[in-house]
Amino acid sequence: MLSTDIQEQFLAKLGAYRDLSLKTLIDFIPDREPKKYLYDLVTLYPKRGGKGFRPGLCLAACNIFGGTTAEAMNSAIALELFHNAFLVHDDIEDESDDRRGSPTMHAAHGVPIAINVGDAMNVLSIRPLMHNIFTLGPSLTWQVFSEIEHMVLESVEGQAMELGWRQDNLCDLKEDDYLRMILKKTCWYTCIHPLRIGAIIGSGGAMDPDVFNRFGYYLGAAFQIQDDLLNLVGDQDKYGKEICGDVLEGKRTLMLIYLLNTCNQKEKQKLETYLAKKRSLRMPDETEWVMKMMKKYDCIAYGRKNAQNLAGAALKEFYTVFGHMPESEDKQFIESMILYMINRDY
Amino acid sequence: MLSTDIQEQFLAKLGAYRDLSLKTLIDFIPDREPKKYLYDLVTLYPKRGGKGFRPGLCLAACNIFGGTTAEAMNSAIALELFHNAFLVHDDIEDESDDRRGSPTMHAAHGVPIAINVGDAMNVLSIRPLMHNIFTLGPSLTWQVFSEIEHMVLESVEGQAMELGWRQDNLCDLKEDDYLRMILKKTCWYTCIHPLRIGAIIGSGGAMDPDVFNRFGYYLGAAFQIQDDLLNLVGDQDKYGKEICGDVLEGKRTLMLIYLLNTCNQKEKQKLETYLAKKRSLRMPDETEWVMKMMKKYDCIAYGRKNAQNLAGAALKEFYTVFGHMPESEDKQFIESMILYMINRDY
Repeated sequence: MLSTDIQEQFLAKLGAYRDLSLKTLIDFIPDREPKKYLYDLVTLYPKRGGKGFRPGLCLAACNIFGGTTAEAMNSAIALELFHNAFLVHDDIEDESDDRRGSPTMHAAHGVPIAINVGDAMNVLSIRPLMHNIFTLGPSLTWQVFSEIEHMVLESVEGQAMELGWRQDNLCDLKEDDYLRMILKKTCWYTCIHPLRIGAIIGSGGAMDPDVFNRFGYYLGAAFQIQDDLLNLVGDQDKYGKEICGDVLEGKRTLMLIYLLNTCNQKEKQKLETYLAKKRSLRMPDETEWVMKMMKKYDCIAYGRKNAQNLAGAALKEFYTVFGHMPESEDKQFIESMILYMINRDY
Repeated sequence: MLSTDIQEQFLAKLGAYRDLSLKTLIDFIPDREPKKYLYDLVTLYPKRGGKGFRPGLCLAACNIFGGTTAEAMNSAIALELFHNAFLVHDDIEDESDDRRGSPTMHAAHGVPIAINVGDAMNVLSIRPLMHNIFTLGPSLTWQVFSEIEHMVLESVEGQAMELGWRQDNLCDLKEDDYLRMILKKTCWYTCIHPLRIGAIIGSGGAMDPDVFNRFGYYLGAAFQIQDDLLNLVGDQDKYGKEICGDVLEGKRTLMLIYLLNTCNQKEKQKLETYLAKKRSLRMPDETEWVMKMMKKYDCIAYGRKNAQNLAGAALKEFYTVFGHMPESEDKQFIESMILYMINRDY
């Protein structure tokens, strides 16, 4: 656990970066029509107050490696817009009901409008990246663009893997499959690219961004497993999504994969039958049974242990990558984020 | 009607440009995993053989204004990829069953996978635009990028208008509303930007691309109305989509708007009730009744007349924009496209 002081400093900085980037993001939304079916909706998720990990990591990395918050701001809000666009489509794909404590975009406005709002958020995230030309010049602007292109490609590939597993009801996945999937679906866009982009801008293109890949992978994987744990045992009011939603969705979490590989044959068959059903046909008592199995086989403890190990690996990598940099609030911020990722309750 | 010779020349050129850009597009798809859930699917729609209007217009404009086919090819395939991505999401939003004679992406692979495939196609369309840097240099690459950004923004705005009208069951729309919507949803990305981008590249950035806006608008509007007409009275085998699908979807076509504004009060109320229902609750005999009303009020003839007027306006604009350019196959190609747009049967 972080000491209370350090945790408070961390949360204050995370909040400050988040608020600043949210304000800039909102200013970037063009004053155009149609409002009701589009522009009023593109800021719906951002305004609900995400945690702001991605802009936070990007802005802190920029500051650590010699740049300013202002220099990385356009890229930070592009990351945040892309993230929120991804959530809008992800919520449809997962048939999720709630996001950040309120109905998902498609639950509130229908699937057609929601798909289009996500598409609009994706194209709107291009605009701030194009504005980089005025502050960063053509070479860095181009480099950041290439980072984003790779980031989005990895994300859709990871998403395709996860959706495909569910569609084909794959039940023989291994831990390695899971880790490869979240590297693609989560780590690149949540940690690796925000750090890479921040450092590229901060160092004026002098840094080799590959040094962040390993750290960002460990950090992102710890984050994702914690997210999946909260979905199983979190406090719905704090977490903002329906608890056990992942089980209902048949999502291949590390805990579910562990359960499938650990339970006996009869239980596995029952689990496979549950997972083969359409979401709407999965009965509450069946979902409860899955939760009971998770308890029986200590899946939560297994997930926690894995998240802790990954956080430990991230800490070790942190010292390798950031150790030689002078102490600063931003360096402390990134270090604190490691433990926060696995101790947060929302 | 075009003379048989000219029409054959036109179709041959359209086919040649389409085949060349399809081949280049397919070569651009990275050899990456996952194949089954993603990369095998991103070329599904392109391989079904669209007409290739967008790459055709872009390549022809580039050639007319001093460039080569090769110089505009990256941009042409970006346009085609974006168009196909748009179709994948549009088909989900419209709950369409068929596209180019086969099941739509979501009908064949489920909504979650289809949304993600569309997202992937959007990001894949960025790659060829980035490759422009090697052939066109930074300034033109940047200009083409800005064109694409505007194009996608207009498209999602037009889509939002149309989806919103349906969602709120608006029944008091005017012809002007329709034309404004298709300017955004269709004309920018089907005609105006392909021409602008082709001419920007062909002229090495020397041309003012705004000269194409009016021509592209007339051409795109004639195209869209003809498309909506084919949906009402076309030959399903040739057209490749379910006939009357637009009526079933409650799509606000020019013909439907005209009907709503022309029929008597009692009929209008019945029509409003039909349009207020969910698609799955609209009965075949009700849809037949709508078609009977369209016949009673000569809506098809009204649509044809409008498409012809727009094609006439496009022809006049064609002489203004292209008249001073030397005669060439490509100039003839664009001129022929005007009449083809309103005479095609698929």
